[in-house]
Amino acid sequence: MKEDPKVRPWKTLESETAFPEPWMRIRKDKVQLPSGRVVDDYFVWDNPPIAHVAAMTPEGKIVMARQYRHAVGEILLVFPAGGIDPGEEPEAAARRELEEETGYTTDQPLVHIGSFATYETKLSGRHDVFFAPGARQKGKRVKDDQEETEVLLLSLEELAAEFAGTKFCSSSAVTDYHLLRNHLAQSV
Amino acid sequence: MKEDPKVRPWKTLESETAFPEPWMRIRKDKVQLPSGRVVDDYFVWDNPPIAHVAAMTPEGKIVMARQYRHAVGEILLVFPAGGIDPGEEPEAAARRELEEETGYTTDQPLVHIGSFATYETKLSGRHDVFFAPGARQKGKRVKDDQEETEVLLLSLEELAAEFAGTKFCSSSAVTDYHLLRNHLAQSV
Repeated sequence: MKEDPKVRPWKTLESETAFPEPWMRIRKDKVQLPSGRVVDDYFVWDNPPIAHVAAMTPEGKIVMARQYRHAVGEILLVFPAGGIDPGEEPEAAARRELEEETGYTTDQPLVHIGSFATYETKLSGRHDVFFAPGARQKGKRVKDDQEETEVLLLSLEELAAEFAGTKFCSSSAVTDYHLLRNHLAQSV
Repeated sequence: MKEDPKVRPWKTLESETAFPEPWMRIRKDKVQLPSGRVVDDYFVWDNPPIAHVAAMTPEGKIVMARQYRHAVGEILLVFPAGGIDPGEEPEAAARRELEEETGYTTDQPLVHIGSFATYETKLSGRHDVFFAPGARQKGKRVKDDQEETEVLLLSLEELAAEFAGTKFCSSSAVTDYHLLRNHLAQSV
Protein backbone atom coordinates (compact mmCIF):
# COMPACT_ATOMS: atom_id res chain seq x y z
CA MET A 1 0.00 0.00 0.00
CA LYS A 2 1.22 3.45 -0.88
CA GLU A 3 2.37 5.43 2.09
CA ASP A 4 0.11 8.35 2.88
CA PRO A 5 0.78 11.36 5.00
CA LYS A 6 -1.31 11.37 8.15
CA VAL A 7 -4.64 13.08 7.78
CA ARG A 8 -4.58 16.40 9.59
CA PRO A 9 -7.42 18.50 11.00
CA TRP A 10 -8.13 22.03 9.83
CA LYS A 11 -7.71 25.19 11.90
CA THR A 12 -10.71 27.44 12.39
CA LEU A 13 -9.47 31.04 12.18
CA GLU A 14 -12.82 32.81 12.41
CA SER A 15 -16.46 31.78 12.73
CA GLU A 16 -19.67 33.75 12.34
CA THR A 17 -23.37 33.16 11.86
CA ALA A 18 -24.24 33.47 8.17
CA PHE A 19 -27.94 32.47 8.27
CA PRO A 20 -29.57 32.98 11.65
CA GLU A 21 -32.83 30.99 11.31
CA PRO A 22 -33.36 29.06 14.56
CA TRP A 23 -34.34 25.86 12.66
CA MET A 24 -31.37 26.05 10.31
CA ARG A 25 -28.57 28.15 11.73
CA ILE A 26 -25.73 28.23 9.20
CA ARG A 27 -22.21 29.10 10.35
CA LYS A 28 -19.47 30.48 8.10
CA ASP A 29 -15.98 29.40 9.13
CA LYS A 30 -12.72 30.83 7.87
CA VAL A 31 -10.46 27.78 7.94
CA GLN A 32 -6.81 27.01 7.27
CA LEU A 33 -6.22 23.69 5.52
CA PRO A 34 -3.14 21.52 6.27
CA SER A 35 -1.69 22.74 2.95
CA GLY A 36 -1.66 26.27 4.38
CA ARG A 37 -4.39 27.50 2.08
CA VAL A 38 -7.08 29.61 3.73
CA VAL A 39 -10.74 29.09 2.80
CA ASP A 40 -12.83 32.14 3.68
CA ASP A 41 -16.31 30.63 3.54
CA TYR A 42 -16.73 27.03 4.67
CA PHE A 43 -20.41 26.67 5.64
CA VAL A 44 -21.62 24.38 8.42
CA TRP A 45 -25.18 23.73 9.61
CA ASP A 46 -25.14 23.62 13.40
CA ASN A 47 -27.99 21.14 13.53
CA PRO A 48 -29.23 19.98 16.92
CA PRO A 49 -27.88 16.85 18.62
CA ILE A 50 -30.34 13.96 18.20
CA ALA A 51 -31.26 11.04 20.47
CA HIS A 52 -32.42 7.78 18.87
CA VAL A 53 -34.01 4.81 20.63
CA ALA A 54 -34.23 1.15 19.70
CA ALA A 55 -36.98 -0.05 22.05
CA MET A 56 -37.74 -3.75 22.47
CA THR A 57 -40.92 -5.18 23.96
CA PRO A 58 -40.80 -8.16 26.36
CA GLU A 59 -41.94 -10.24 23.35
CA GLY A 60 -38.84 -9.21 21.37
CA LYS A 61 -40.54 -6.78 18.97
CA ILE A 62 -38.82 -3.51 18.01
CA VAL A 63 -40.88 -0.30 18.17
CA MET A 64 -40.54 1.42 14.77
CA ALA A 65 -42.11 4.46 13.15
CA ARG A 66 -43.13 5.33 9.61
CA GLN A 67 -42.97 9.08 9.02
CA TYR A 68 -43.05 11.51 6.11
CA ARG A 69 -39.70 13.22 5.41
CA HIS A 70 -40.28 16.45 3.60
CA ALA A 71 -36.79 17.15 2.21
CA VAL A 72 -36.76 13.86 0.27
CA GLY A 73 -40.55 13.67 -0.18
CA GLU A 74 -40.75 10.07 1.04
CA ILE A 75 -42.39 8.09 3.84
CA LEU A 76 -39.59 6.17 5.52
CA LEU A 77 -39.18 3.55 8.22
CA VAL A 78 -37.19 5.00 11.13
CA PHE A 79 -36.41 4.46 14.78
CA PRO A 80 -38.03 6.98 17.16
CA ALA A 81 -35.66 9.96 17.43
CA GLY A 82 -35.60 13.66 17.99
CA GLY A 83 -33.66 16.71 19.04
CA ILE A 84 -32.02 16.87 22.47
CA ASP A 85 -33.22 20.03 24.23
CA PRO A 86 -30.60 22.42 25.66
CA GLY A 87 -29.54 21.07 29.06
CA GLU A 88 -31.37 17.77 28.53
CA GLU A 89 -29.50 14.48 28.98
CA PRO A 90 -29.40 12.39 25.77
CA GLU A 91 -30.98 9.43 27.62
CA ALA A 92 -33.84 11.62 28.86
CA ALA A 93 -34.40 12.88 25.31
CA ALA A 94 -34.51 9.28 24.04
CA ARG A 95 -37.16 8.36 26.64
CA ARG A 96 -39.18 11.47 25.85
CA GLU A 97 -39.08 10.96 22.08
CA LEU A 98 -40.03 7.29 22.42
CA GLU A 99 -43.10 8.17 24.48
CA GLU A 100 -44.11 11.20 22.42
CA GLU A 101 -43.82 9.45 19.06
CA THR A 102 -45.04 5.95 19.94
CA GLY A 103 -46.67 5.93 23.40
CA TYR A 104 -44.13 3.32 24.57
CA THR A 105 -42.11 3.64 27.77
CA THR A 106 -39.92 1.43 29.91
CA ASP A 107 -39.10 1.23 33.60
CA GLN A 108 -35.65 -0.18 32.84
CA PRO A 109 -32.43 1.82 32.35
CA LEU A 110 -31.53 2.62 28.76
CA VAL A 111 -28.20 1.42 27.35
CA HIS A 112 -26.04 3.71 25.19
CA ILE A 113 -25.13 1.59 22.14
CA GLY A 114 -23.32 4.06 19.88
CA SER A 115 -23.08 7.50 18.37
CA PHE A 116 -22.76 8.76 14.83
CA ALA A 117 -22.64 11.71 12.46
CA THR A 118 -24.83 12.41 9.43
CA TYR A 119 -23.36 14.31 6.46
CA GLU A 120 -20.37 15.01 8.65
CA THR A 121 -18.61 17.41 6.28
CA LYS A 122 -21.36 20.00 6.75
CA LEU A 123 -23.56 19.03 9.76
CA SER A 124 -22.13 19.38 13.26
CA GLY A 125 -24.82 17.67 15.37
CA ARG A 126 -24.12 14.28 16.91
CA HIS A 127 -26.57 11.39 17.20
CA ASP A 128 -26.67 9.19 20.32
CA VAL A 129 -28.39 5.82 20.14
CA PHE A 130 -29.96 3.97 23.07
CA PHE A 131 -31.38 0.50 23.58
CA ALA A 132 -34.59 0.45 25.64
CA PRO A 133 -35.49 -3.03 26.90
CA GLY A 134 -38.88 -3.87 28.45
CA ALA A 135 -40.83 -1.37 26.34
CA ARG A 136 -44.59 -1.32 26.97
CA GLN A 137 -47.37 0.78 25.54
CA LYS A 138 -48.46 2.68 28.62
CA GLY A 139 -47.60 6.28 27.89
CA LYS A 140 -49.69 8.60 25.82
CA ARG A 141 -48.69 9.69 22.33
CA VAL A 142 -48.29 13.40 21.81
CA LYS A 143 -50.01 14.49 18.63
CA ASP A 144 -47.51 16.40 16.49
CA ASP A 145 -48.91 17.26 13.09
CA GLN A 146 -45.38 17.77 11.72
CA GLU A 147 -44.59 14.17 12.62
CA GLU A 148 -47.62 12.00 11.80
CA THR A 149 -46.49 8.54 12.87
CA GLU A 150 -47.53 5.01 12.06
CA VAL A 151 -46.18 2.81 14.84
CA LEU A 152 -45.01 -0.67 13.82
CA LEU A 153 -43.89 -3.54 16.03
CA LEU A 154 -41.41 -5.63 14.06
CA SER A 155 -39.53 -8.78 14.96
CA LEU A 156 -35.78 -8.78 14.37
CA GLU A 157 -36.39 -11.02 11.35
CA GLU A 158 -38.93 -8.57 9.90
CA LEU A 159 -36.54 -5.69 10.57
CA ALA A 160 -33.69 -7.54 8.84
CA ALA A 161 -35.95 -8.05 5.81
CA GLU A 162 -36.84 -4.34 5.75
CA PHE A 163 -33.16 -3.42 5.54
CA ALA A 164 -32.05 -6.33 3.31
CA GLY A 165 -32.86 -4.92 -0.12
CA THR A 166 -31.86 -1.95 -2.20
CA LYS A 167 -34.98 0.09 -1.34
CA PHE A 168 -34.36 3.80 -0.67
CA CYS A 169 -33.79 4.11 3.08
CA SER A 170 -32.69 6.43 5.88
CA SER A 171 -28.99 6.11 6.71
CA SER A 172 -29.79 7.01 10.33
CA ALA A 173 -32.27 4.13 10.51
CA VAL A 174 -29.75 1.71 8.98
CA THR A 175 -27.12 2.86 11.48
CA ASP A 176 -29.54 2.52 14.41
CA TYR A 177 -30.33 -1.00 13.17
CA HIS A 178 -26.63 -1.84 12.81
CA LEU A 179 -25.88 -0.62 16.36
CA LEU A 180 -28.88 -2.56 17.72
CA ARG A 181 -27.64 -5.78 16.07
CA ASN A 182 -24.11 -5.15 17.40
CA HIS A 183 -25.48 -4.68 20.90
CA LEU A 184 -27.73 -7.76 20.82
CA ALA A 185 -24.88 -9.90 19.42
CA GLN A 186 -22.62 -8.82 22.30
CA SER A 187 -25.34 -9.35 24.93
CA VAL A 188 -25.95 -13.01 24.08
CA MET B 1 -51.06 -3.05 17.78
CA LYS B 2 -52.92 0.22 17.91
CA GLU B 3 -54.45 1.20 14.59
CA ASP B 4 -52.83 4.31 13.14
CA PRO B 5 -54.01 6.57 10.38
CA LYS B 6 -51.88 6.24 7.28
CA VAL B 7 -48.98 8.63 7.14
CA ARG B 8 -49.63 11.33 4.56
CA PRO B 9 -47.21 13.54 2.63
CA TRP B 10 -47.22 17.31 2.91
CA LYS B 11 -48.18 19.72 0.16
CA THR B 12 -45.66 22.35 -0.94
CA LEU B 13 -47.59 25.58 -1.57
CA GLU B 14 -44.62 27.84 -2.32
CA SER B 15 -40.85 27.48 -2.46
CA GLU B 16 -38.09 30.06 -2.62
CA THR B 17 -34.35 30.33 -2.09
CA ALA B 18 -33.67 31.69 1.39
CA PHE B 19 -29.85 31.43 1.45
CA PRO B 20 -28.25 31.40 -2.01
CA GLU B 21 -24.70 30.22 -1.26
CA PRO B 22 -23.72 27.69 -3.98
CA TRP B 23 -22.18 25.32 -1.39
CA MET B 24 -25.19 25.51 0.91
CA ARG B 25 -28.31 26.62 -0.89
CA ILE B 26 -31.17 26.76 1.61
CA ARG B 27 -34.76 26.62 0.37
CA LYS B 28 -37.75 27.96 2.29
CA ASP B 29 -40.94 25.99 1.63
CA LYS B 30 -44.46 27.04 2.58
CA VAL B 31 -46.08 23.68 3.32
CA GLN B 32 -49.54 22.42 4.23
CA LEU B 33 -49.51 19.58 6.74
CA PRO B 34 -52.10 16.74 6.59
CA SER B 35 -53.84 18.41 9.57
CA GLY B 36 -54.53 21.40 7.33
CA ARG B 37 -52.12 23.67 9.19
CA VAL B 38 -49.84 25.79 7.03
CA VAL B 39 -46.17 26.23 7.98
CA ASP B 40 -44.69 29.32 6.33
CA ASP B 41 -41.00 28.58 6.76
CA TYR B 42 -39.87 24.98 6.50
CA PHE B 43 -36.17 25.12 5.57
CA VAL B 44 -34.47 22.50 3.40
CA TRP B 45 -30.84 22.27 2.32
CA ASP B 46 -30.76 21.24 -1.34
CA ASN B 47 -27.49 19.40 -0.95
CA PRO B 48 -25.96 17.70 -3.99
CA PRO B 49 -26.64 14.06 -4.83
CA ILE B 50 -23.69 11.89 -3.79
CA ALA B 51 -22.17 8.75 -5.30
CA HIS B 52 -20.44 6.25 -3.00
CA VAL B 53 -18.29 3.31 -4.01
CA ALA B 54 -17.38 0.08 -2.25
CA ALA B 55 -14.39 -1.09 -4.30
CA MET B 56 -12.93 -4.56 -3.82
CA THR B 57 -9.50 -5.69 -5.03
CA PRO B 58 -8.99 -9.12 -6.62
CA GLU B 59 -7.53 -10.14 -3.22
CA GLY B 60 -10.82 -9.29 -1.49
CA LYS B 61 -9.69 -6.07 0.21
CA ILE B 62 -12.03 -3.05 0.41
CA VAL B 63 -10.60 0.36 -0.57
CA MET B 64 -11.35 2.74 2.31
CA ALA B 65 -10.45 6.34 3.12
CA ARG B 66 -9.69 8.23 6.31
CA GLN B 67 -10.58 11.90 6.00
CA TYR B 68 -11.06 14.93 8.22
CA ARG B 69 -14.67 16.08 8.56
CA HIS B 70 -14.76 19.70 9.54
CA ALA B 71 -18.35 20.03 10.80
CA VAL B 72 -17.81 17.37 13.47
CA GLY B 73 -14.06 18.01 13.84
CA GLU B 74 -13.14 14.33 13.55
CA ILE B 75 -11.08 12.09 11.27
CA LEU B 76 -13.43 9.32 10.17
CA LEU B 77 -13.25 6.08 8.18
CA VAL B 78 -15.42 6.38 5.07
CA PHE B 79 -15.99 4.85 1.67
CA PRO B 80 -14.84 6.98 -1.28
CA ALA B 81 -17.72 9.28 -2.21
CA GLY B 82 -18.48 12.68 -3.64
CA GLY B 83 -20.96 14.95 -5.34
CA ILE B 84 -22.50 13.95 -8.66
CA ASP B 85 -21.89 16.78 -11.16
CA PRO B 86 -24.88 18.20 -13.07
CA GLY B 87 -25.59 15.89 -16.01
CA GLU B 88 -23.17 13.23 -14.75
CA GLU B 89 -24.38 9.62 -14.35
CA PRO B 90 -24.13 8.39 -10.73
CA GLU B 91 -21.98 5.43 -11.84
CA ALA B 92 -19.56 7.76 -13.64
CA ALA B 93 -19.33 9.92 -10.52
CA ALA B 94 -18.58 6.83 -8.42
CA ARG B 95 -15.73 5.83 -10.79
CA ARG B 96 -14.38 9.38 -10.82
CA GLU B 97 -14.46 9.77 -7.04
CA LEU B 98 -12.81 6.38 -6.52
CA GLU B 99 -9.93 7.30 -8.80
CA GLU B 100 -9.57 10.90 -7.56
CA GLU B 101 -9.59 9.98 -3.87
CA THR B 102 -7.70 6.69 -3.90
CA GLY B 103 -6.03 6.14 -7.30
CA TYR B 104 -7.98 2.88 -7.75
CA THR B 105 -9.95 2.03 -10.88
CA THR B 106 -11.64 -1.02 -12.35
CA ASP B 107 -12.30 -2.26 -15.88
CA GLN B 108 -15.43 -4.09 -14.72
CA PRO B 109 -18.97 -2.68 -14.64
CA LEU B 110 -20.10 -1.22 -11.32
CA VAL B 111 -23.17 -2.67 -9.59
CA HIS B 112 -25.77 -0.37 -7.98
CA ILE B 113 -26.33 -1.82 -4.51
CA GLY B 114 -28.64 0.71 -2.87
CA SER B 115 -29.57 4.32 -2.23
CA PHE B 116 -30.20 6.31 0.91
CA ALA B 117 -30.94 9.65 2.51
CA THR B 118 -29.01 11.47 5.23
CA TYR B 119 -30.88 13.71 7.69
CA GLU B 120 -33.90 13.28 5.46
CA THR B 121 -36.14 15.80 7.23
CA LYS B 122 -33.93 18.68 6.08
CA LEU B 123 -31.51 17.45 3.33
CA SER B 124 -32.91 16.65 -0.12
CA GLY B 125 -29.88 15.03 -1.80
CA ARG B 126 -29.88 11.30 -2.47
CA HIS B 127 -26.93 8.97 -2.12
CA ASP B 128 -26.33 6.13 -4.61
CA VAL B 129 -23.99 3.31 -3.67
CA PHE B 130 -22.02 1.14 -6.11
CA PHE B 131 -19.96 -2.01 -5.79
CA ALA B 132 -16.75 -1.95 -7.85
CA PRO B 133 -15.17 -5.40 -8.26
CA GLY B 134 -11.67 -5.90 -9.64
CA ALA B 135 -10.26 -2.65 -8.27
CA ARG B 136 -6.57 -2.04 -8.96
CA GLN B 137 -4.28 0.84 -8.15
CA LYS B 138 -3.49 2.08 -11.61
CA GLY B 139 -5.06 5.51 -11.74
CA LYS B 140 -3.50 8.65 -10.35
CA ARG B 141 -4.78 10.35 -7.22
CA VAL B 142 -5.89 13.92 -7.58
CA LYS B 143 -4.49 16.07 -4.81
CA ASP B 144 -7.37 17.91 -3.12
CA ASP B 145 -6.22 19.84 -0.08
CA GLN B 146 -9.82 19.97 1.21
CA GLU B 147 -9.88 16.19 1.23
CA GLU B 148 -6.52 14.90 2.48
CA THR B 149 -6.95 11.13 2.29
CA GLU B 150 -5.25 8.16 3.89
CA VAL B 151 -6.09 5.12 1.76
CA LEU B 152 -6.59 1.85 3.64
CA LEU B 153 -7.08 -1.64 2.20
CA LEU B 154 -9.17 -3.61 4.70
CA SER B 155 -10.37 -7.19 4.62
CA LEU B 156 -14.07 -7.77 5.29
CA GLU B 157 -13.11 -9.05 8.74
CA GLU B 158 -11.14 -5.88 9.49
CA LEU B 159 -14.00 -3.76 8.20
CA ALA B 160 -16.48 -5.65 10.39
CA ALA B 161 -14.24 -4.97 13.40
CA GLU B 162 -14.09 -1.26 12.54
CA PHE B 163 -17.88 -1.03 12.64
CA ALA B 164 -18.47 -3.46 15.50
CA GLY B 165 -18.03 -1.16 18.47
CA THR B 166 -19.62 1.98 19.81
CA LYS B 167 -16.94 4.32 18.41
CA PHE B 168 -18.23 7.55 16.87
CA CYS B 169 -18.77 6.84 13.17
CA SER B 170 -20.23 8.16 9.91
CA SER B 171 -23.79 6.94 9.28
CA SER B 172 -23.09 7.08 5.54
CA ALA B 173 -20.09 4.77 5.99
CA VAL B 174 -22.13 2.36 8.12
CA THR B 175 -24.89 2.35 5.49
CA ASP B 176 -22.37 1.78 2.67
CA TYR B 177 -20.95 -1.12 4.70
CA HIS B 178 -24.43 -2.54 5.34
CA LEU B 179 -25.29 -2.38 1.62
CA LEU B 180 -21.97 -3.99 0.71
CA ARG B 181 -22.60 -6.89 3.11
CA ASN B 182 -26.15 -7.29 1.74
CA HIS B 183 -24.80 -7.42 -1.80
CA LEU B 184 -22.03 -9.90 -1.02
CA ALA B 185 -24.43 -12.15 0.92
CA GLN B 186 -26.78 -12.26 -2.08
CA SER B 187 -23.94 -12.88 -4.55
CA VAL B 188 -22.67 -16.04 -2.86
